[in-house]
Amino acid sequence: MEDKHFIRGKIPMTKSEIRAIVIAKLELQADSILYDIGAGTGSVAVEAALTARQGHVYAIEQKEEGCELIRRNQAALGAKNLTVVEGRAPKALAGLPIPDRVFIGGSGGELAKILDQVRDCNPQVRVVLTVIALETLTEVGEYLRRRELEAEIVSVQVARAEKLGNYHLMQGQNPVYIITISGGMK
Amino acid sequence: MEDKHFIRGKIPMTKSEIRAIVIAKLELQADSILYDIGAGTGSVAVEAALTARQGHVYAIEQKEEGCELIRRNQAALGAKNLTVVEGRAPKALAGLPIPDRVFIGGSGGELAKILDQVRDCNPQVRVVLTVIALETLTEVGEYLRRRELEAEIVSVQVARAEKLGNYHLMQGQNPVYIITISGGMK
Amino acid sequence: MEDKHFIRGKIPMTKSEIRAIVIAKLELQADSILYDIGAGTGSVAVEAALTARQGHVYAIEQKEEGCELIRRNQAALGAKNLTVVEGRAPKALAGLPIPDRVFIGGSGGELAKILDQVRDCNPQVRVVLTVIALETLTEVGEYLRRRELEAEIVSVQVARAEKLGNYHLMQGQNPVYIITISGGMK
Amino acid sequence: MEDKHFIRGKIPMTKSEIRAIVIAKLELQADSILYDIGAGTGSVAVEAALTARQGHVYAIEQKEEGCELIRRNQAALGAKNLTVVEGRAPKALAGLPIPDRVFIGGSGGELAKILDQVRDCNPQVRVVLTVIALETLTEVGEYLRRRELEAEIVSVQVARAEKLGNYHLMQGQNPVYIITISGGMK
Repeated sequence: MEDKHFIRGKIPMTKSEIRAIVIAKLELQADSILYDIGAGTGSVAVEAALTARQGHVYAIEQKEEGCELIRRNQAALGAKNLTVVEGRAPKALAGLPIPDRVFIGGSGGELAKILDQVRDCNPQVRVVLTVIALETLTEVGEYLRRRELEAEIVSVQVARAEKLGNYHLMQGQNPVYIITISGGMK
Repeated sequence: MEDKHFIRGKIPMTKSEIRAIVIAKLELQADSILYDIGAGTGSVAVEAALTARQGHVYAIEQKEEGCELIRRNQAALGAKNLTVVEGRAPKALAGLPIPDRVFIGGSGGELAKILDQVRDCNPQVRVVLTVIALETLTEVGEYLRRRELEAEIVSVQVARAEKLGNYHLMQGQNPVYIITISGGMK
Repeated sequence: MEDKHFIRGKIPMTKSEIRAIVIAKLELQADSILYDIGAGTGSVAVEAALTARQGHVYAIEQKEEGCELIRRNQAALGAKNLTVVEGRAPKALAGLPIPDRVFIGGSGGELAKILDQVRDCNPQVRVVLTVIALETLTEVGEYLRRRELEAEIVSVQVARAEKLGNYHLMQGQNPVYIITISGGMK
Repeated sequence: MEDKHFIRGKIPMTKSEIRAIVIAKLELQADSILYDIGAGTGSVAVEAALTARQGHVYAIEQKEEGCELIRRNQAALGAKNLTVVEGRAPKALAGLPIPDRVFIGGSGGELAKILDQVRDCNPQVRVVLTVIALETLTEVGEYLRRRELEAEIVSVQVARAEKLGNYHLMQGQNPVYIITISGGMK
């Protein structure tokens, strides 16, 4: 889906190209239970809900402003199978149905705890993370080493043409690491 | 879908991250008629067919080896709503149902003719192109200028971690331009 | 040289990493005569003048504000072997000494004329261009084809870590094409 | 300098664009003492020696094959102010003159020790590192945090046009992080 379909506010939104790759790497099933942790504007959550129509998406977001935005995007795009959970992971995950898919767009410094908790719930869970800070990249690397896990790691750098008079100038976007931990066969 | 799901042979394949963005930019409807021109291994065609399940995909490919590969990928992944058309576009497009979506991964130097033909058929057609040669980028730019069309142009550069001993080295892939000509509302 | 050494104003400046590559590709001799066409803030001109200390740099810039900035950077960094030429190339080049090196950072739509003129003056001239607009990339490609010239073409995308709290976020800069036309042995 | 000026063998060589940025970030003085640690083919060492003509470059390399290559490149390009040191840093650094500049292209897992040793010798030393492995990026980040140092961190991704028939295809090179620790004013 294009970015223009989403209401944004001041919350940073996963850009359409990155979102497309994230959705593809999640390999959603029609009935997947997905946690979107650090859901921001909810763009990944809503697009995932529209993909896994017999499943359910839990969008975990600690900022009230973000939660409101997710609800507005949910309503605007008709994603009924989505529940907004206001709070911080991993605490806010207590009591939610067991996920088979998890997307982590923001972890508030609790990455290892979040990963342990969702993997304890379901050792087969497939987790996709987007990382923009070098410190978070280090956190992920250390977690993978400690738990002796392999992951797919790609970095993606997008530039977009902007028109200036008769010229199209390529504008660089921020590079993003996309990391996929595939918990096993489903 | 991951690259490993596809049989490749010696034909270059659109890599999974680029394919995910292409599929997203096509905005396939459940009943879309898609031409995949220069279909190569058929990875885009097959993934599109599995997405637009009530629609149909025509994979146009001039090399016999490519056509065979597409058929094998089609069979392996159960994409019934896909027809392989051996030949060169635009000639090979004659007689096919009118498309609402076109993906051009290779144009054999006939880009302007192909674009004119599919846009004549259906002025509302949505076209996505992947471009890796500077000369093709020029061809697209001149076509857009001549026809007074606007398009979305992004470039995407992916790097992938490869393991070497205890180290993960990021390996650069070739940058790809992805261009979307949205013909209008559907 | 780091960017912080230059006074900028509102004129866009070639960033330090791109400037380093441009200076390297120019292969300046100690006594080179360099034209810096579309000199902007003069960052390339000044750094080149400090490199080719027995040579001379002509910084051609059409905006008065730019010319003033170049003079201030020249004074601040002590680059005596540099002359600011206010005007538009190729017209403003008339009467200047024959160059063995030319850098084109901006061509005001006169790229082919500029290239013809400097190559007529000195068929051995080494020319380096930075290109950020797709239309200019097309112009360069067509010129090379028409004149049957080969050139080295690279694209460079830089991202820079910015500190946000305890995190370093990589910020993407705009991709730049750097094209080198080596006129022959000197 | 262009890559073609260097003899390569099988040792990986810092590519010309990255080398240009590294040389610029080193901010060599005419009389700088530079250690090039993990010197590989010696391309950085030789170019630095030709830049800092009244200074001296110590190229530390543990592989005999590499040392031989550095000597051949040194001879071919006339870089007299360069000494090849066969061995592993930091041990191989014992007894060398105090450096004001250090480039680390490879650290053999001893990064923290090397950094501590050169910074103990000269707290004002300016250090530039190129990093291609995620694990090394983590090592650098942890070192900076532990020693409460700030550094400039950029990533650079280059693509180079290769001719295939009448087409120029952009070929992605591997992304490189370039990190600069500026020890203070000189």
